[in-house]
Amino acid sequence: MENIKLFITDIDGVWTDGGMYYDQSGNELKKFNTSDSAGVLFLKLLNIPTAIITGENTDIVKRRAEKLQIRHVFLGVKDKVAVATDLCNRLNLDLTEVAYIGDDINDLLLLGRVGLSACPFNAPSYVKKRVDWIIPVRGGDGAFRQFVERYLERNNLLDEIVQRYLNQNSSFNQ
Amino acid sequence: MENIKLFITDIDGVWTDGGMYYDQSGNELKKFNTSDSAGVLFLKLLNIPTAIITGENTDIVKRRAEKLQIRHVFLGVKDKVAVATDLCNRLNLDLTEVAYIGDDINDLLLLGRVGLSACPFNAPSYVKKRVDWIIPVRGGDGAFRQFVERYLERNNLLDEIVQRYLNQNSSFNQ
Amino acid sequence: MENIKLFITDIDGVWTDGGMYYDQSGNELKKFNTSDSAGVLFLKLLNIPTAIITGENTDIVKRRAEKLQIRHVFLGVKDKVAVATDLCNRLNLDLTEVAYIGDDINDLLLLGRVGLSACPFNAPSYVKKRVDWIIPVRGGDGAFRQFVERYLERNNLLDEIVQRYLNQNSSFNQ
Amino acid sequence: MENIKLFITDIDGVWTDGGMYYDQSGNELKKFNTSDSAGVLFLKLLNIPTAIITGENTDIVKRRAEKLQIRHVFLGVKDKVAVATDLCNRLNLDLTEVAYIGDDINDLLLLGRVGLSACPFNAPSYVKKRVDWIIPVRGGDGAFRQFVERYLERNNLLDEIVQRYLNQNSSFNQ
Repeated sequence: MENIKLFITDIDGVWTDGGMYYDQSGNELKKFNTSDSAGVLFLKLLNIPTAIITGENTDIVKRRAEKLQIRHVFLGVKDKVAVATDLCNRLNLDLTEVAYIGDDINDLLLLGRVGLSACPFNAPSYVKKRVDWIIPVRGGDGAFRQFVERYLERNNLLDEIVQRYLNQNSSFNQ
Repeated sequence: MENIKLFITDIDGVWTDGGMYYDQSGNELKKFNTSDSAGVLFLKLLNIPTAIITGENTDIVKRRAEKLQIRHVFLGVKDKVAVATDLCNRLNLDLTEVAYIGDDINDLLLLGRVGLSACPFNAPSYVKKRVDWIIPVRGGDGAFRQFVERYLERNNLLDEIVQRYLNQNSSFNQ
Repeated sequence: MENIKLFITDIDGVWTDGGMYYDQSGNELKKFNTSDSAGVLFLKLLNIPTAIITGENTDIVKRRAEKLQIRHVFLGVKDKVAVATDLCNRLNLDLTEVAYIGDDINDLLLLGRVGLSACPFNAPSYVKKRVDWIIPVRGGDGAFRQFVERYLERNNLLDEIVQRYLNQNSSFNQ
Repeated sequence: MENIKLFITDIDGVWTDGGMYYDQSGNELKKFNTSDSAGVLFLKLLNIPTAIITGENTDIVKRRAEKLQIRHVFLGVKDKVAVATDLCNRLNLDLTEVAYIGDDINDLLLLGRVGLSACPFNAPSYVKKRVDWIIPVRGGDGAFRQFVERYLERNNLLDEIVQRYLNQNSSFNQ
């Protein structure tokens, strides 16, 4: 667990509550939670990159990733294991050095391959029983951040990271 | 119950929490839940079609149906029993081979005619007491998917369907 | 209580959860709940009109009222008691024949004057202690409909109204 | 505590639930709660100004502030302590005469400097343990108003303010 060098995250149902807002003219919205932005920041302070892998293909996620300065963003992915493996190869990592959080059946195969797997507590039971950690909040309520913070806590890093953040007194994109 | 050959679903209050978002210029939004998309997919793997019958007449629902590749979509319906009966005739089915989930008084007559009826647990009491199953989530929280999954479980099909999905490792529209 | 001849309702915090969605360009949204539409319909079946009195002045509410065919709509109201009194005079009613539901301090004076007053259960304590009925749902979760249904129940009219609705098998705007 | 002469508030996670709604074309929305508007009004009746300091830089907050006639609005702030100190200097106040509510790590330094600090109850534990008051509602559920009302209650001012509001029977922007 101490060896996690990359966090990968699903979007719908993890960074959101699964909600997809459709309007009458073809536009769509997703509701993100500013809380998750601190998770990305905390990892950055540890030089651990965050990657997004989602089956959806939409500019909504692209813009969110840009705001949080997430470089590794994979949209419209059919085979999440393949994409994650490719990324690991590029970064000279093994999947066992990856932490992944997803919430549904299309995440199951990747969840079964990474070193540390998690899902929000409102995921289906057949997802819950296949992950290392069930994060005690729903998707969209900061599940990604809680995943990161639990990882930091288990490695006795959370207090240090918070303090490091306070010392530099920097702001960050939410 | 083993004979269900068609799932029909209401939209507002089942696929949504009943929310209707109005803006200032005449546009409107509905919030769907990606969770329900797996319900449609699971039925597809069993060659059971999903149909939508709603009293509302809006492109919002049409687009959602297109994304999930639902072919049978009836908008602006005044008489749900008549429309469901017509559809059954076309598909050579009887209403007793249909499962229907709805949440309000305009669903009551159809709920009383189908082989398997359900409503989300936040439906009014006079709806709840007239259905076979009260699904233990609110409308908009994946009530349709839970309806499908409970049906699969009762027929010992859920594990098989999840496994079949994993074997083909396919993605699907959410 | 049997003498209620007009239902008046506040909008923000009653038909909505108080949410005001602002975008970047000056547009705004409110989230209504289709559940409340049946409240308006039930009253119509009893020939009891519904009126809207709100401090906000926005086309959002106007359009919602039009969809539900509510004729008495008062927007941008500063003095709710004055507007309600005027409406009563026009309809030859007394304020004691009016039922009103509101949720905040700008509703207190009118709540104190009508024959039957109510608020959603998440209203402030100083509103709650001044109304006849605390409706056991939050604003936006169908509080208006529950208000109407409780009134019908207390007058042994709810079963009859539901049956009357079913007999005519009509649809209605949600 | 009786000496509070200025209320400062964070926005995301306090006036909202942290939700950031992104659409496909670059537009964004925030969901405010009309409940908080009464907090601003109550303070106005006591001649206590409300100020907004937020790390985000968006017209959304500007428009909300304009509607509620909040004059002191600081957007895109990197150093909240510096901005709050500047404002205090301009108003001839000390930070010990300021009440501040924020919900996350970028609020911690300012929370540690003001006379009265608070956060919504869903803030992270390392924020909660550094504030004077944990407000018993979530961000977006009227946390700012509850902060103001608790302050008024502790100073035996709430009943008087409500009564003063009723006596003038004025409306206010929500």
